[in-house]
Amino acid sequence: MTYSPRSFRALTWHDGVAAMRDGTDTPRAYLERCLETIAAREPVVRAFTAMNEAGARGAADASTARWRAGRPLSPIDGMPVAIKDLLETRDMPTEMGAEAFRGNFPKRDNAAVRALREAGAVVLAKTVTAELGGSHPGPTTNPFDPARTPGGSSSGSAAAVAARFVPAAIGTQVGGSIIRPAAYCGNVALKPSQGGINRGERQATSQSTHGPHAGCIEDMWQVASEIARRAGGDRGHAGLMGPDTCPEATKPQRLIVMESAGWAGLDAVSRGAFETLLERIRDAGIEVLRRADHRLIEHFEGGIAEAGPVSNAITAWENHWLLRNIVDQTPDGISARLKQTLANAEAMTPADYALRLLQREEAQRRHAAIAPLADAVIALACPGPAPPWAGDAPGQPLAPRPTGDAVFNTPSSMLFAPVVTVPLLAVGGMPVGLQVMGQREEDARVTAIARWLLGTVAPVEA
Amino acid sequence: MTYSPRSFRALTWHDGVAAMRDGTDTPRAYLERCLETIAAREPVVRAFTAMNEAGARGAADASTARWRAGRPLSPIDGMPVAIKDLLETRDMPTEMGAEAFRGNFPKRDNAAVRALREAGAVVLAKTVTAELGGSHPGPTTNPFDPARTPGGSSSGSAAAVAARFVPAAIGTQVGGSIIRPAAYCGNVALKPSQGGINRGERQATSQSTHGPHAGCIEDMWQVASEIARRAGGDRGHAGLMGPDTCPEATKPQRLIVMESAGWAGLDAVSRGAFETLLERIRDAGIEVLRRADHRLIEHFEGGIAEAGPVSNAITAWENHWLLRNIVDQTPDGISARLKQTLANAEAMTPADYALRLLQREEAQRRHAAIAPLADAVIALACPGPAPPWAGDAPGQPLAPRPTGDAVFNTPSSMLFAPVVTVPLLAVGGMPVGLQVMGQREEDARVTAIARWLLGTVAPVEA
Repeated sequence: MTYSPRSFRALTWHDGVAAMRDGTDTPRAYLERCLETIAAREPVVRAFTAMNEAGARGAADASTARWRAGRPLSPIDGMPVAIKDLLETRDMPTEMGAEAFRGNFPKRDNAAVRALREAGAVVLAKTVTAELGGSHPGPTTNPFDPARTPGGSSSGSAAAVAARFVPAAIGTQVGGSIIRPAAYCGNVALKPSQGGINRGERQATSQSTHGPHAGCIEDMWQVASEIARRAGGDRGHAGLMGPDTCPEATKPQRLIVMESAGWAGLDAVSRGAFETLLERIRDAGIEVLRRADHRLIEHFEGGIAEAGPVSNAITAWENHWLLRNIVDQTPDGISARLKQTLANAEAMTPADYALRLLQREEAQRRHAAIAPLADAVIALACPGPAPPWAGDAPGQPLAPRPTGDAVFNTPSSMLFAPVVTVPLLAVGGMPVGLQVMGQREEDARVTAIARWLLGTVAPVEA
Repeated sequence: MTYSPRSFRALTWHDGVAAMRDGTDTPRAYLERCLETIAAREPVVRAFTAMNEAGARGAADASTARWRAGRPLSPIDGMPVAIKDLLETRDMPTEMGAEAFRGNFPKRDNAAVRALREAGAVVLAKTVTAELGGSHPGPTTNPFDPARTPGGSSSGSAAAVAARFVPAAIGTQVGGSIIRPAAYCGNVALKPSQGGINRGERQATSQSTHGPHAGCIEDMWQVASEIARRAGGDRGHAGLMGPDTCPEATKPQRLIVMESAGWAGLDAVSRGAFETLLERIRDAGIEVLRRADHRLIEHFEGGIAEAGPVSNAITAWENHWLLRNIVDQTPDGISARLKQTLANAEAMTPADYALRLLQREEAQRRHAAIAPLADAVIALACPGPAPPWAGDAPGQPLAPRPTGDAVFNTPSSMLFAPVVTVPLLAVGGMPVGLQVMGQREEDARVTAIARWLLGTVAPVEA
C-alpha cells in the first residue's frame, strides 16, 4: 500500500458537518464506518490498547440526537477520537505502555479528555504509546508498510489517524513524540506552544505537551481549540488562543530553513526531495533564508545543535523519581532500555540539570532573536521515511532508535515553540512531513502558514 | 502553657551534632526522646496521621552506626522529620486530609522525601493537613493553646515542631500554608522561591511549594539545602542554591514594610507590637521604608491588594479537574467547603484564568521594581495570634477561616518570592511571626537577614 500525498484520502470530519446538520449523515453512522475500518485493519496496525465500543455508540447516539435537535455542543460534536494511553480516561485503563501499569484503571478523565467529552467528541479508544512516552516501542505498525515503525511515542495515535480509524487522536510530545510519528504517517499534527493545552494531572516534564493528530488541518485546529477553550493551558499558562475555526491560509513572505543536527545524517533522496520542495516554495514567491544567509540564523543553529542531548538529559532527570519509585516497587516494571535512562539520570546532579536548563534557555533566546527575520521556520519533520524495524532481537544489543530518530523534533521541544507538520513529501512510497515552527504562542500563525503551504505547494514525491 | 519568645526552647538538631560525633548522644537516643514527648502530648496536639516507629528506630540505628563510624551522610543524618500528609511516603499512607483518600497508600516516596532519606534523616511520621491543602481543617490543636488553631494547611507540621515532637517537618504552601501555621506556632520556616525545592510528583498548582518548619533557622536551612542538593528544583527550575550550612547573619541597610490587605483588619495590640518591633529594628541602625516613603512601594502595595482573590481563583481553577474527578467517583469524598470551591472554579472560563495570571504577573513586576530600594521586605507573618476555633458547628454556616487568615501570606505566594518567618513577637501569650521576603531566588539572602534579626533584635511581647 504505497503512499502518495496526491492520492491519499485521509479521514476527515469538518467537511461532513453539513451532512450531520441536514441529517443525511449521523455521528452514529460515522462511528460505524470507523468501526468497520478498524475491524478490517486493526489486526495488522495494532493502534489500540483498549476500545470502548458500547460507550462510544452511546455517546454517538447522544450526539446524533443533539444534531437532530439543532443543538450540537461544538463543531466536533460526534467526532470519534482516540487518546494516547498516557492520558487517563474514566472508561478505559491507562497502562502507559509499561509493564508496571498493566491493568492500571484510575477511572478519572484527564483535563483534555474531559474537555473533548464536553465538546461532544466520542472517545472511542486508547492508543499505543512507547513505554511511558519514551522510546521502547509497542506493537503498532505503520499503516503504509507493516514492516516499518509508525514512529513514537505517539505510535497508536499516528497510526489510527493514518489508517482512517478515527479523524483525530491525541498525542503527547516531550522530544519528538507528536510530530515525528505524524510525519511518518502522513498526518497533520500540532505540537502546541509549551503550556498551550492543559495537560491536567499529567504535568509530566518541563517539555511535555498534548496535541492533536488529524487527517486535515481544519480538524487539527478544531480539536486543539475545543480543548483549549474549555480547559485552557497548563497551570500558570493562559493557553492556546486563536479563531474559533481553523485560521485562514496565510501566505508568508519569508521562511527560514532549520537544518538542525539532523541535516548531516540525512539520506540523499530525502534531502533532494526537501530541496525540490524549497524550490517550489520559492517559485510561489516566498523568500527562503538558509543558515548562510544571516549570522543570527547560524547562531540559532548553534543553539539547537545539541537539542537531543539537552532534551534527553532534562527529561531523564525530571522523570527519575517516578522511574525509581516504579523500579523499587516493581523491579521488572520497566524495560532494560528505560532502566538505562534511569541510571543515566541518577548519575546527574542538580548542577548538571541546571546547566542543561541554561543551554535550553540560551537556545530559546537565540530562537527569539530570529523572529524579525521571517514569518516562520520550516524543516523536515523527520529524517526521511519511517525506518523498517522488527523489534529488539533477543540476546542482541538494544536497537538504538526503535521508533525513528527525533533529531528534527527536539529543537521545537526545547524551544517551547509551536509546530505544525503537514504531509507535503513522500520518499520511496512513504510519507515524510514538512514542519512549520513559530515563536512561542504563535500556534494560530503557524497553522495559517501551514494551511497555505498545504493548499498552494504541490507535494514532492521522490 | 503561655508562649514567650524569650523563654521558649525549641527542639533543635544542629547544636547536637557534636555530641553525635563524639558519641555522647546518638540518633537513636534522640529519637527516643522525641517519642517520649510525642507519647505525652500527641493525644491533645494531634499532629500526626501516621507514625512508623519501627521504621524510624531502624533508620536511627543505621544512622547511629554511621556516626559511630565517622561517616554520616550529611549534617542531618539521624534527624527525625515529619512529612505533611500531601507528600507520598513509601512506608506510610498518604490520605491528604480528604475522605476520598482514606487508606490511600501508594508506597512511593516523593522526591523531597527520598532526598531526606538519602541525607540520612529519619522519616518518623506524616502530619495532619487541611483537606487537600485547602482550608477545611483536621484535628490538630495549637501546642500553646488547645483551643486555638495551629494554622493550616500545614497544621500538623507546624504543631509537631512547636510541640518538640521533631526538630523539623515538611510543609507545603500555595496561599499561606507554610508561613501562617509556622507564625502561629512560633517556628522558623522557609517558603522557598517558586520552584526552589523539587515537589516531585506533587506539581499541584502553579503557586505550590514545599518548605521546612524547624525549631531554629540553622535546621531550617540545612533541611532545605539537603533536599535541594539532592533533588534540585521543580522541573524546569535549577533549584535553591546557597552555602552548605546556614548563611551567616547579615545586617540589612534598609527594609521595606509590606502592609498588604491585612493591615486594615489588624487588631490594635498586634499592630502595636509590630510597630514596637519596627522601632527596635530602627534602633539597630536599619532604615525602615513605609508605603508613604516611595511611590514604587505604594505601587507595589496596589499590586498585591487583591492577592487573596487572585491566588484563590488561580488555585481553584488549577485544581478543578482533580476535584471534579474525585466528586464524580466519590460524591462524598470532599467537604461541602471544597465543593463550593469546585463550583466557583467551574464557573470560570480560560479567559477568567488568563486575566488572573496577568494580575499575578503585574504584581511580580511591581515587586521586582522595588528591589533596588532595600535589602528585603518585612511584614507580619500572620494577622495577630492564632484565633480560637472549635470546629464547624452542625447545622450552622461554615466558619470562614478555620485555620486563620492567609492575608499576610498570599502576597509572597503570588509573587513566587522566598520568605522566612521568625518568632520575634508574642501577643497575649501566643506566638506571632515576623516574615522576611526577598526577590525570587534570594532564599539564602532572606535567610541571612532573618538570622541577623533573630540574633539581634529583642522579641516584642504584648
